[in-house]
Amino acid sequence: MPPQKKTADLLNESLNKRILVELKGNREYRGILEGYDHPHMNLVLRNAEEAKDGEIVRKIDRVIIRGDNIIYISP
Amino acid sequence: MPPQKKTADLLNESLNKRILVELKGNREYRGILEGYDHPHMNLVLRNAEEAKDGEIVRKIDRVIIRGDNIIYISP
Amino acid sequence: MPPQKKTADLLNESLNKRILVELKGNREYRGILEGYDHPHMNLVLRNAEEAKDGEIVRKIDRVIIRGDNIIYISP
Amino acid sequence: MPPQKKTADLLNESLNKRILVELKGNREYRGILEGYDHPHMNLVLRNAEEAKDGEIVRKIDRVIIRGDNIIYISP
Amino acid sequence: MPPQKKTADLLNESLNKRILVELKGNREYRGILEGYDHPHMNLVLRNAEEAKDGEIVRKIDRVIIRGDNIIYISP
Amino acid sequence: MPPQKKTADLLNESLNKRILVELKGNREYRGILEGYDHPHMNLVLRNAEEAKDGEIVRKIDRVIIRGDNIIYISP
Amino acid sequence: MPPQKKTADLLNESLNKRILVELKGNREYRGILEGYDHPHMNLVLRNAEEAKDGEIVRKIDRVIIRGDNIIYISP
Repeated sequence: MPPQKKTADLLNESLNKRILVELKGNREYRGILEGYDHPHMNLVLRNAEEAKDGEIVRKIDRVIIRGDNIIYISP
Repeated sequence: MPPQKKTADLLNESLNKRILVELKGNREYRGILEGYDHPHMNLVLRNAEEAKDGEIVRKIDRVIIRGDNIIYISP
Repeated sequence: MPPQKKTADLLNESLNKRILVELKGNREYRGILEGYDHPHMNLVLRNAEEAKDGEIVRKIDRVIIRGDNIIYISP
Repeated sequence: MPPQKKTADLLNESLNKRILVELKGNREYRGILEGYDHPHMNLVLRNAEEAKDGEIVRKIDRVIIRGDNIIYISP
Repeated sequence: MPPQKKTADLLNESLNKRILVELKGNREYRGILEGYDHPHMNLVLRNAEEAKDGEIVRKIDRVIIRGDNIIYISP
Repeated sequence: MPPQKKTADLLNESLNKRILVELKGNREYRGILEGYDHPHMNLVLRNAEEAKDGEIVRKIDRVIIRGDNIIYISP
Repeated sequence: MPPQKKTADLLNESLNKRILVELKGNREYRGILEGYDHPHMNLVLRNAEEAKDGEIVRKIDRVIIRGDNIIYISP
C-alpha cells in the first residue's frame, strides 16, 4: 500500500491558509482555515467571503460551515 | 500539527453573544446563543428573529434550531 | 466554559406547555408538549393544530412528530 | 424533571387501535397498529387505507411503513 | 405491553410469498420474497415485475431492492 | 424461520457475472461484478456501460459505484 | 466465496493515477488520486479539473471531494 495523503492531512496542512469551499446550491466560501472537525468536515474560517453564482454576497469575520453541505474544499 | 479552533471552541466563545444562523431554504436566524448540542449543532437562541429572503418574518423569544438544516453559523 | 442551556433543558422546561413546531414544507404545529425523545427530537403533542401556509388545516388530539422534519421548536 | 409521555409510550398505548400516519408527498395511511420498530418508527398496520391528496387510492390488508418517510402519527 | 407484530415478524411470515413493494418516485415492485436484511430492509425478490405509474415496465428474474427507497411493503 | 437468501448471498453468487444496477436519476449500469462492500452496497464493476434514459452514454473499464444511489441490483 | 476486489482495493491500486469522479448535479472531476478516507470515500486529488455538463469549468491544484456526493469513481 503506497503512502497516501488523507483528507485530514490536507486539512492540517491548510490550517491558517486561505481555502475555497464549494457548497451545494452554488454557494462558495473563501477564507482562512482556523480549524475543522474530523470526520464531519465542519470548518471554521476567518476573513471569509460568501459568493453566490460567482458574486460576493457577504463578508463574514468568522464562520462555522457545516460539513454536510460541502461538495469540495480546495486549499 | 498547529493549534486549531474547532467548531465547539467557537460556539463556546459565542455563548451569550449574538450570532447569525443561515439555514437551507433562504432562512436566517439572529439571536443570542444560549447553548448548543455537540456534535449535532442544535442551537438554543433567545431574543431571536427569523428572516426569509432578507425580511424579518417573525420574532421569537426562544427557539431550538435543529442542526440538520444549518448551512453556516457566524458569531 | 460558561453554563449553557442545552436543547434538552429547554424541552424539559417546556413539558406541559404550549409550543410551536415548524417543519419542512411550510407546516406548523402548535400543541402542548407531553414528551420528547432525545436526541432524535421526536415530539409528543396534545391538543394540537396543524397549519399549512398560515391556515389551520387540522386539529389533532394527540400527535407524534418525527424529529427529522423539524426546522425549529419555539416554547 | 416532570414525568413525560415518550413516543414509545404513545405507540404502545395505540397497539390494536386505529391510527393515522402522514407521510412525505401528501400520502396518508389509516389502519390498526399491530407493531412498531423502535427507534426507527417502522410501523405494521392492518386493515389499512392509503389516501393521496385526500382520496382513498388503495386498501391494503397488511402493510409495513418505513419510519423514514413519516411526518407524524396520530392515534 | 401487549404482544406486537414487528416488521421482522411480518417479513418472516412473507418469505416465499408474493409481496408488493412501493418505492419513492412512483415505482412499484411485485415478486416473491426470498430474503431481507434487518434493519436495512433491503429485499431479495424473485419473479419480479417493476411497474411505473401503474404500467409494468420490466420483468426481472431476481432483484435486490435497497431499503432506503422503500415507502411501504405489503405482503 | 425458513431459510432465506440475503442480499450478501445473492451478491456473492453474482461475483464475476454480469449484473444490472439501477441508480436514482434514470441511470443504469451493466457490468461484471468484481466485488462489493457490505453493508454499504458499494460495487466494483468491470467492462461496464452507463446508460441514461435507455441509451448507452459511456463505456467504462472499471468503476466503483456508491451504494447510496442504488435503487436495485439485478443479477 | 470467490476472491473479490473491494472498493478499497481498487482505490488503493489507483493511488497516484488519474481517475474520473462523477458527482450528483452533472459535475465531473478528473485528477490524480493522492488519498482517500475509508469508508466515507472522501478523495484527495491533485492536478484536478472540474467539468460541468461536459465543459471544463475550473482547474484546481488540489482538492478534497466529499464522498457523499459521489455517484461513481472510475480509475
